[in-house]
Amino acid sequence: MRVGNLPGIRRLPIYLDILRKLSESGLETVSAHILAEEAGLLVSVVRKDIEMTGATGKTGVGFCIDALVSNIETFLGWDNPYYAFLAGVGNLGSALLGYEGFRNHGLHIVAAFDVNPEAIGRVVHEVEVLHLDTLCGLAQRLHVSTGIITVPSAQAQGVADLFVTAGITRIWSFAPKILRVPSNVTIQREDLAAGLAELLVRSARRSERRPLVL
Amino acid sequence: MRVGNLPGIRRLPIYLDILRKLSESGLETVSAHILAEEAGLLVSVVRKDIEMTGATGKTGVGFCIDALVSNIETFLGWDNPYYAFLAGVGNLGSALLGYEGFRNHGLHIVAAFDVNPEAIGRVVHEVEVLHLDTLCGLAQRLHVSTGIITVPSAQAQGVADLFVTAGITRIWSFAPKILRVPSNVTIQREDLAAGLAELLVRSARRSERRPLVL
Repeated sequence: MRVGNLPGIRRLPIYLDILRKLSESGLETVSAHILAEEAGLLVSVVRKDIEMTGATGKTGVGFCIDALVSNIETFLGWDNPYYAFLAGVGNLGSALLGYEGFRNHGLHIVAAFDVNPEAIGRVVHEVEVLHLDTLCGLAQRLHVSTGIITVPSAQAQGVADLFVTAGITRIWSFAPKILRVPSNVTIQREDLAAGLAELLVRSARRSERRPLVL
Repeated sequence: MRVGNLPGIRRLPIYLDILRKLSESGLETVSAHILAEEAGLLVSVVRKDIEMTGATGKTGVGFCIDALVSNIETFLGWDNPYYAFLAGVGNLGSALLGYEGFRNHGLHIVAAFDVNPEAIGRVVHEVEVLHLDTLCGLAQRLHVSTGIITVPSAQAQGVADLFVTAGITRIWSFAPKILRVPSNVTIQREDLAAGLAELLVRSARRSERRPLVL
């Protein structure tokens, strides 16, 4: 599946954070150089990422911060709020329910599901926990498009199947396991080990090169 | 910083999961085609990712599973166990302390830290929670190389500074905030919103193209 510059897409939320902070501090325009410095990236990378969203700057002035925020949000589809269900209210599920970032991104988790009798009926970060059996009917009534999987690996495929049956077409899975879904469903596997892999390799490359730099 | 194929590096843990499962089911060799199918990726992508680790297959036979696992682990540095501290034992921190995946990856979280009196002294997934004030001395005694930040954004820079003072050179931060560290420290920011951005853009691309396909 070709969707353009995936690493760039993953960086866009970083720019949004920086732009919001610059805007709060009273700035109205920003250069690609400042953005690059704040994000710890190369200017050429920042320019390419921003170009992807269709935003254009002016020579000597830079980008209008409000316009750039709105370009990035539209590109990511974060200007349209959408509803999500979360299945699995363990530690990770609870962490996602309380994650500071999502509210800025149009993501509204409207209900959480579990099968543990101790979890059902609780309210976690203002979201009610319901029994997994009630998921299908509710998804259709509430026009829920997105499902988040935070159950243990062994239950993840079952929950994915349930999401698909409920008509959910976007699945975001945190289970360290590959899940099968029909071709009309987009699944994003969030592997916490991926970040660890990246950190270790980047750090090793740096140590290897250090003697050459000194 | 150029470290080669970062998206490929992030995919390596997926191959490891698949290879371990195939090995458990009694297989000794695997083709790039099977790996690609299991991972839901293009064969050309899988070949390129594996090539990066230095592993070589045989025509008509494929890759020896044990050798490929060992190549990937060595490439990622996961064959050498290393020690980490985790700061911030809220929901996300607790989830990471219990994450099934890390034990396979050489990562040993040897202590967790917090400032909340209710958290200190608790044992979370077999890891003791200590007061943040004791971090510096312990890092040096235990040869801890890696620090994981799961505190709220507002405290994240303070914890990063503390890690740096303690001699930690690899920081894995889950705070939705850009942190400043000296140039000899590698920092990996794990932005949960990045995965959400990728999911939405991939799903939107697919919907746009659907009428052409039908």
